[in-house]
Amino acid sequence: MKVSELGEFGLIEHLAKIAYQTQGKETTPGQQLIIGIGDDAAVWHGDARVELATADSFIQDVHFSLGTASWNELGWKALAASLSDIAAMGGVPKYALVSLSLPGDTEVEDVTDLYRGMIQVGQQFGVAIVGGDTSNAPLVIINTTVLGSTKGRDMHILTRSAAKPGDKVAVTGYLGAAAAGLEMLTKHLIFDPEDGASLERAFLHPEPRIAEGQLLLEQGVKTAIDISDGLVSDLSHILKASRVSAQIVIDRVPIHPAVKANFGDKAVELALSGGEDYELLFTASAEVTRQVITKASCPVTVIGNIIADKIGKITLIDREGKPFRPTKTGWEHFATS
Amino acid sequence: MKVSELGEFGLIEHLAKIAYQTQGKETTPGQQLIIGIGDDAAVWHGDARVELATADSFIQDVHFSLGTASWNELGWKALAASLSDIAAMGGVPKYALVSLSLPGDTEVEDVTDLYRGMIQVGQQFGVAIVGGDTSNAPLVIINTTVLGSTKGRDMHILTRSAAKPGDKVAVTGYLGAAAAGLEMLTKHLIFDPEDGASLERAFLHPEPRIAEGQLLLEQGVKTAIDISDGLVSDLSHILKASRVSAQIVIDRVPIHPAVKANFGDKAVELALSGGEDYELLFTASAEVTRQVITKASCPVTVIGNIIADKIGKITLIDREGKPFRPTKTGWEHFATS
Repeated sequence: MKVSELGEFGLIEHLAKIAYQTQGKETTPGQQLIIGIGDDAAVWHGDARVELATADSFIQDVHFSLGTASWNELGWKALAASLSDIAAMGGVPKYALVSLSLPGDTEVEDVTDLYRGMIQVGQQFGVAIVGGDTSNAPLVIINTTVLGSTKGRDMHILTRSAAKPGDKVAVTGYLGAAAAGLEMLTKHLIFDPEDGASLERAFLHPEPRIAEGQLLLEQGVKTAIDISDGLVSDLSHILKASRVSAQIVIDRVPIHPAVKANFGDKAVELALSGGEDYELLFTASAEVTRQVITKASCPVTVIGNIIADKIGKITLIDREGKPFRPTKTGWEHFATS
Repeated sequence: MKVSELGEFGLIEHLAKIAYQTQGKETTPGQQLIIGIGDDAAVWHGDARVELATADSFIQDVHFSLGTASWNELGWKALAASLSDIAAMGGVPKYALVSLSLPGDTEVEDVTDLYRGMIQVGQQFGVAIVGGDTSNAPLVIINTTVLGSTKGRDMHILTRSAAKPGDKVAVTGYLGAAAAGLEMLTKHLIFDPEDGASLERAFLHPEPRIAEGQLLLEQGVKTAIDISDGLVSDLSHILKASRVSAQIVIDRVPIHPAVKANFGDKAVELALSGGEDYELLFTASAEVTRQVITKASCPVTVIGNIIADKIGKITLIDREGKPFRPTKTGWEHFATS
């Protein structure tokens, strides 16, 4: 059935039924929810903590293509990207509002799959979809807002602006796999099946580092960002906000093994500028960083140092200490190439 | 300058500077704000009240046309529409997240005007723009999320589901002017200058009924919705959610004088189904309704009664009690015509 046959209100009702699964008594956030989808606004009991909110747009043929992602994967990824922003603050995500804009001839089954993808990632990370909007549009646009709060009642959060000279620069997980996955899918590259599966999963099914963000906070980290635009680009946000500079040792950057194995010289570029890995990039003292490495359930790698130099400057050096120049510096959505 | 020349991060920085105006110490919401635009998420102190959130999409050539609205008006209207949803809950709007998707050749000056329109309506209603997202897109898409709370600490809110047989049905202000304004602008109709100005203002510069929503709550009203899709369509949302029926006396519907004066027989249709008036439609006992009429600073008109009949049924009668049939029943965004 087409979306146009169901009508806007029919579609809302249909999605509301699916979303109610996430608003039940079993999910923690549902316990504070008063009204979910179906009224003018979502309503819940506040708890006097520090509140967080983030919004993202996912636009067809800009941020995604229906040729490389299934509707279900698209739903997962769109919501995961917003959850990643809450992870980068060390927050606890709780509620999501999802606005879907769709061509009238979209199959309702496809929208259902999209929504199910969102509900899957929502349930995995304790997030209920409580509202949003649907409308007609010439292309698919997914707008997600995620609301969350801090674990404690104080304003203990990870910001971009607390990096200090002497801090180590570190990342969770491996980099470059999402961008490599996109390249594999669009260019129909054939790799070893396990490598192919890893890269596809990295691109289509990213997992926001919610637990890791909270661990960083608990261990005393003050500065973090999620890697959505690319390591270099996202690091530069930290450097500018903190008014510091950084030195990154290229050979320490944890390039995903499947990227290293299949992309030759391009592997470094994918890891530095690929984006969409949704790993956390953070800075902290050597001691705090060591604590994080000890306690994290994922690999955490030190890749460089925060230094006092020209604000925003990133010096990339290789293992011999020689300067290294990347060919790209993150995704600038508007930039003309 | 084009948006593409400024780049995504340049645009964010530019908009953040403008938005800081709304986050200063003079505005009430700013006092609780910890981090606005420029980090991974907006952050503020919760106050243990009941929290509200609503999201809307405004899509070029679906919800608006750049031929009938200036960028500034577009900004005003997009945010006003979301504020209206908070008004319909009787809430106090506090923070907004704005995601802008724009073609790269959009003039930065136009985006600035759009943002200024949002800031104007935000400042008028005490709302700070604290976050969002910008991205490239083949058409202009504005997604607004508004966060608010109840005035008190209890869950005292206006819902769609509390209408009871015996309730009066009433509306704030006048209806039909926004749809008439759209028709005037698209068909280049020439009216008496004052009428023309009223209709244009109604369509381009709607004022969310924030104070009126709070007044309704204070006076004991339990059921309300804002008229975004049209009186008949929005009333039917209340009726379905409350499992009741309604009888509306056509001659009691407060058609805007400028619509009555210039649209002949079509005036009734515009008032019943035109949409985008952003007035509040509510139901309450005769006594509560009288109190609201006495205390409201805008006209409030009783237009019918809630009755116990087939769920969702709306009976339209004229002054002689004869049945009346509208030609349209609200805007169904997806419905094929």
